[in-house]
Amino acid sequence: MSSAAIPKTTNRWVLAEHVPKDRPLTKDFFRWETDVTLREIQDGELLVKVAHLGMEPSMKGTFTQEKSYRPAHPLGAPLWALGIADVLASKSSKYSAGDRIFGYVGQESNAIINENSPLLQKLHPALGKQALSLLGPPGLAAHVGLMNVAKCTKDDVVLVSAAAGATGSIVVQLAKALGVKKVVGIASSRKLDAVLETGADAAVGYDSPSFLEDLRKATNEEVSVYFENVGGKVLDAALEVMAPNGRIALCGVISEYQGQEEPIRGMRWILKKKLLLEGFICNQRGPEALLTAIKELTQWGIEGKVKTNIHTYQKKGLEHAPDALLALLNGENTGKMVLDL
Amino acid sequence: MSSAAIPKTTNRWVLAEHVPKDRPLTKDFFRWETDVTLREIQDGELLVKVAHLGMEPSMKGTFTQEKSYRPAHPLGAPLWALGIADVLASKSSKYSAGDRIFGYVGQESNAIINENSPLLQKLHPALGKQALSLLGPPGLAAHVGLMNVAKCTKDDVVLVSAAAGATGSIVVQLAKALGVKKVVGIASSRKLDAVLETGADAAVGYDSPSFLEDLRKATNEEVSVYFENVGGKVLDAALEVMAPNGRIALCGVISEYQGQEEPIRGMRWILKKKLLLEGFICNQRGPEALLTAIKELTQWGIEGKVKTNIHTYQKKGLEHAPDALLALLNGENTGKMVLDL
Repeated sequence: MSSAAIPKTTNRWVLAEHVPKDRPLTKDFFRWETDVTLREIQDGELLVKVAHLGMEPSMKGTFTQEKSYRPAHPLGAPLWALGIADVLASKSSKYSAGDRIFGYVGQESNAIINENSPLLQKLHPALGKQALSLLGPPGLAAHVGLMNVAKCTKDDVVLVSAAAGATGSIVVQLAKALGVKKVVGIASSRKLDAVLETGADAAVGYDSPSFLEDLRKATNEEVSVYFENVGGKVLDAALEVMAPNGRIALCGVISEYQGQEEPIRGMRWILKKKLLLEGFICNQRGPEALLTAIKELTQWGIEGKVKTNIHTYQKKGLEHAPDALLALLNGENTGKMVLDL
Repeated sequence: MSSAAIPKTTNRWVLAEHVPKDRPLTKDFFRWETDVTLREIQDGELLVKVAHLGMEPSMKGTFTQEKSYRPAHPLGAPLWALGIADVLASKSSKYSAGDRIFGYVGQESNAIINENSPLLQKLHPALGKQALSLLGPPGLAAHVGLMNVAKCTKDDVVLVSAAAGATGSIVVQLAKALGVKKVVGIASSRKLDAVLETGADAAVGYDSPSFLEDLRKATNEEVSVYFENVGGKVLDAALEVMAPNGRIALCGVISEYQGQEEPIRGMRWILKKKLLLEGFICNQRGPEALLTAIKELTQWGIEGKVKTNIHTYQKKGLEHAPDALLALLNGENTGKMVLDL
């Protein structure tokens, strides 16, 4: 590619205002900036043209100013996003013009990124847009939670909640790839077929009147590893079917994402069954665990052992990024929400 | 001691009936047997004369038939108890007649015990009846929970609930012996002086209207290790003041011992702060951790770094064992409840 093709400007979405905790996210909090001049890249940097962006549920949390253990997104900075992009120019020895990469690129048409940016890697061609799920937060959380936090082995009986979701569906497939004794998924009744299709040995609907009874039967109360995405009543039911010395990887509390508290009533089981419960984020076990996750997820993705659903947003172009995010937050997707640029 | 002094019989309390889960424990569930013929001891066994018995809150649970991960006490068998006893006869190479030992002896006047019985050891004379607390469930749970489950080091800020209790008061002293940055105890307001006397840097009353605010001030929200004996609202308040990546050793849920459930509302903190919570019993980390606990507790007990309160029951003699246990369960004690024989 000739240097004449190197763009001098970018279009981008930046954070105009922090979202108050009690306000829903709307497009008003973002500002669309066009023809922003790009500086020259420095040693160790790449200029990339973004091809696809992944939309993450956790974006909402970072766009607030709520006290959290993740810093709030800076005002005026391009909105963060993982994406797939093509290298246009490089002052890095690791990447060359023409490489297709996966990494944090931001909601920009053209972006300057550092060669040491977290997760940045050449994209394996066999993965394509699946990388945005498999090597993004869902896959990494599934792998680190199952392998490093819950220390899952083939001798385990695994239970997964939100098993039809982006993370849960990968957990089911990873557990099967590990060859565990049994995998049971919890989901809404209308998604049980989808859970079984990903390879779960049994699927239980949390919205059934016989939920707890169904769960007892499906698990034989032998759950040694529980991958938890939900909290509230689902967690309480899971505590009832845990085996002694079981491990619980707490990845999310979906039941509380709309703000209400969901009390847990079965704390005594944590004591009586000597359970281990750990809340975690995907970098919980450090860079080595992440590198292993990326390596194994890539391999299993190539082999077709782990598949993800990609939901490409109906319109194409960076200008639709806020709409794609809102569609995700409204649950309009049936897989990882991806915007094509 | 001449063989003429070897007793041929024993008196003992046995379990006559399992206690239904919803019934309070009364003396009716026990049977007093006198002049029961003792068999000859075999190789590896000792015949001991019991001098002191410790009463344990956990006895109640084992005398029920409630499904649990600890087996129910067998009907007709002598009630279990840790005690201090004198060896009358030995077919063990490890113990000799005249030795004073600490171990599981049962609620018997004379008992036959195996040389490999768990916790069995020669009693260090400097410890005396303190061994029943320091080397019994309170001390062992405090040590294993703090050292092995919570992996406490001198860099930690430690919070302890039920800090005036048998276990909590030892946790405070162990943390001080470790030289941690700060130890804060939670207790009822009338026991705060006692908590400070054991060496806590601050003490907070859970029954104060400003409990949470007091806790925030006392801990500066920097709690990296929480030793939990209570559950319910006390645990919820502790979750609010935990530092990121904090560890919680869940030793008990006193708030539920009367049967009612105490919901936890702050599960989201376990996720947001990436906390580790583990329910444990004192043999959770295996025999080596127990041996280390015994060695260190013995040493610190001899040095006076860790002291326990012993509450000697007002009447002397094995026939009062059920009354001593009921007095414990009714909270009449101000330290480890011990019966002298």
